[in-house]
Amino acid sequence: MALSIGSGTTIVLRLEIDHKHTAFGHIAAAISDAGGDIVAIDVSRSGRHTTTRDITVNVQDSQETEQVVRAVERLSGVQVVNVSDQTFLLHLGGKIEMTSKVSIKNRDDLSRVYTPGVARICQAIHERPERAYTLTVKRNMVAVVSDGSAVLGLGNIGPLAAMPVMEGKAMLFKQFAGVDAVPICLSTQDPEEIIKTVKAIAPSFGGINLEDISSPRCFEIEQRLVEELDIPVFHDDQHGTAVVMLAGLYNALKLVGKKLETVKIVFTGIGAAGIACTKILLAAGARHIIGVDKQGALVRGNEYDHPAWNWYANHTNPQAETGRLRDVIAGADVFIGVSGPGVLSQDDLRLMSPNAIVFAMANPSPEIMPEEAENLVRVMATGRSDYPNQINNVLCFPGLFRGVLDCRASRITEEMKLAAAKAIASAVSEDELNEQYIIPSVFHPDVAERVKEAVIEAAYATGVARRRREQP
Amino acid sequence: MALSIGSGTTIVLRLEIDHKHTAFGHIAAAISDAGGDIVAIDVSRSGRHTTTRDITVNVQDSQETEQVVRAVERLSGVQVVNVSDQTFLLHLGGKIEMTSKVSIKNRDDLSRVYTPGVARICQAIHERPERAYTLTVKRNMVAVVSDGSAVLGLGNIGPLAAMPVMEGKAMLFKQFAGVDAVPICLSTQDPEEIIKTVKAIAPSFGGINLEDISSPRCFEIEQRLVEELDIPVFHDDQHGTAVVMLAGLYNALKLVGKKLETVKIVFTGIGAAGIACTKILLAAGARHIIGVDKQGALVRGNEYDHPAWNWYANHTNPQAETGRLRDVIAGADVFIGVSGPGVLSQDDLRLMSPNAIVFAMANPSPEIMPEEAENLVRVMATGRSDYPNQINNVLCFPGLFRGVLDCRASRITEEMKLAAAKAIASAVSEDELNEQYIIPSVFHPDVAERVKEAVIEAAYATGVARRRREQP
Repeated sequence: MALSIGSGTTIVLRLEIDHKHTAFGHIAAAISDAGGDIVAIDVSRSGRHTTTRDITVNVQDSQETEQVVRAVERLSGVQVVNVSDQTFLLHLGGKIEMTSKVSIKNRDDLSRVYTPGVARICQAIHERPERAYTLTVKRNMVAVVSDGSAVLGLGNIGPLAAMPVMEGKAMLFKQFAGVDAVPICLSTQDPEEIIKTVKAIAPSFGGINLEDISSPRCFEIEQRLVEELDIPVFHDDQHGTAVVMLAGLYNALKLVGKKLETVKIVFTGIGAAGIACTKILLAAGARHIIGVDKQGALVRGNEYDHPAWNWYANHTNPQAETGRLRDVIAGADVFIGVSGPGVLSQDDLRLMSPNAIVFAMANPSPEIMPEEAENLVRVMATGRSDYPNQINNVLCFPGLFRGVLDCRASRITEEMKLAAAKAIASAVSEDELNEQYIIPSVFHPDVAERVKEAVIEAAYATGVARRRREQP
Repeated sequence: MALSIGSGTTIVLRLEIDHKHTAFGHIAAAISDAGGDIVAIDVSRSGRHTTTRDITVNVQDSQETEQVVRAVERLSGVQVVNVSDQTFLLHLGGKIEMTSKVSIKNRDDLSRVYTPGVARICQAIHERPERAYTLTVKRNMVAVVSDGSAVLGLGNIGPLAAMPVMEGKAMLFKQFAGVDAVPICLSTQDPEEIIKTVKAIAPSFGGINLEDISSPRCFEIEQRLVEELDIPVFHDDQHGTAVVMLAGLYNALKLVGKKLETVKIVFTGIGAAGIACTKILLAAGARHIIGVDKQGALVRGNEYDHPAWNWYANHTNPQAETGRLRDVIAGADVFIGVSGPGVLSQDDLRLMSPNAIVFAMANPSPEIMPEEAENLVRVMATGRSDYPNQINNVLCFPGLFRGVLDCRASRITEEMKLAAAKAIASAVSEDELNEQYIIPSVFHPDVAERVKEAVIEAAYATGVARRRREQP
């Protein structure tokens, strides 16, 4: 188990102690000598020969944690069963729960929420199925679906290990937009089975958020579900990233006084997120985009293994520029990276146009570190929370789903994504806008509401909203 | 929409009112004249020509509701959009919600519950998958899965209309046993697709409660899932009913001083619940059971269309009695019905042994009404809440799932079901036991806890509990 933790934190050591071989005083002394400060002791199991105790210890940092653990491990008659820090403790038993909106206090309550009274509600929905949006949690419930194939930076760790991310996402859905999200982690990674499963469970939900599904399977899965379901389906890793990137770019361009229609944009990382970012930029009016992958600039006329790359080559790079990143970055106004660490060098930056904008979004290590780029670019954004201008999907998905649920959208159109991007950008006022603040904080109180309203407007404008609109 | 409601209740009339043709005063007068008492008025929509108003009205009963609605409908310029009573109002927006156990107050919290901190939790589960039971909501989350094919007495009303029942069930799970239950209503009724879907979503859950799936598909679906999943799968309509029936029968037999091993039991309704009840009775030691369906007593040697009936005929009716219900009920000590109204007559009851026990569990109308049976039987139970001795599944499933989740059972064995039945029966003390009280109330405070403990004991005894047990 990894032990890296923040400074000045609390850990819990679960120790199995053999009474015969050691006294607790020795253990306490060893912990203190290693720098730990014991604050609590609990007996979790007590047997004839051994006792299991949870020792809560304050430590300075991860180094001290390791010192404490090693000191205890050296004692005979003591086995370190587990070391939990605050992050682990926070996860014990899961982070979310399903609760009732009303309490069942007596038989009368019971007869309303369950049989026999509930039968009339069922009957009413059976007569007019759209009533499910009024009388059930479908109106507010989203499935956060993952197959665990591309989880954070960890890769294909499977459905069980993906659960904590999906639970975290459910927390964010609730906290930022009041959406009830259910983590659904799948035991299959076969696209056809994933599609069938999501279609099968769809009646309970008002929307589907696909999450951490690897490319290229994610394209087909999303596209098919969008076509075959009557509720919105949104692969957040693609479109959430794209929306927030565009929001940041709108403000960055405003700051440097350039126009999306005329700037030269160079992309690295032509995977799921890169393609989604490119598509939204094209929809927003960008014309001069060049995608670069390991083989160099994607250019029409070439034949690529991956169908998405052929699409990409045919829809970008209008001047058919060729060569490697170093060749095409010359004169670029904007660099957008969703690739990997070290892709971009200081020399590359020196070739860009004045007032260069760099979105180095590779996680956890960006294409170039902000410290290195500092004096060579005008605006810098990353995916990290420890630098300014974080491109964080949390700015998009809660408000977006709040909007589509509220207007009962059947799908999420390109116009709705563009509207969401503009709404996020608008949360940074003219007065506030500067090189260090092109994108609002994830805790900005207005973002979800702005996104919601913009998405609803766009949904009605594009004819996908199914809720009868209030007359003005 | 059905309008039958309890006495002295509140309804909300949603009216679309044309300003030109009517004044609100006329509407208010019409409602008052019809006996309604207006307590609140809200404008839900206001347009140039029409206004939509929600009028909250106190009424005496369902008859008065209809009078009020008709009086309003007679007015010109008024359209009745909707009539909601308290049961409908309770269902607005659904009855359950997904909530966070902790609030995300700042960036530090965010970094623990979501990226980047959550990555260590994912990694820890990836290294040892059983940690999902400690670090995710899997340890406490159950899917309530239905295809909407056999909902309450309503039949095959489909997944959307089944949602209110599954939400109600989720409320009961939480309130009585702290279990987080998620309603999953399926868009397919194909057994193979249902099996695949449940298997696909299983990683997120610690157990599966199948609900309102019609016979005979429910048998194969449950059996296959029990075999192919490593988490407990329980079709409540079968086994929940069986467990609670057995609990009631234990106490009824105790009261009349007869033994399960020697009594003659006649069954009507050899469907999913009837077969499950018979199986648990055989497992509990009953030997003399006769099943009766429309063609008469099931008897070995006959060839039946339905494989389950062949099984039934081969495992019951040891004396190979033949004939109709009237023939085999002679001398029976116990009648158990899960069939339909009117199946049992007073003349049938007169043929039973002294101190007859009748469980007429057909819903909503029992095989014979308690008033008719009153002087002809010693103990009478039904599925209804408005008579004594209600055989209600709520007595079983919350505590049962609490138990299997707590001990991480891989399946629910026959021994665990028997233990649950004994635990439910035990909640009625010797002093309390009488003809009107053989089964505890669903609000009995001890039942879920007793069931949980008995189920855990039985799970360890039969080797299906996977959680390391605390040493005594």
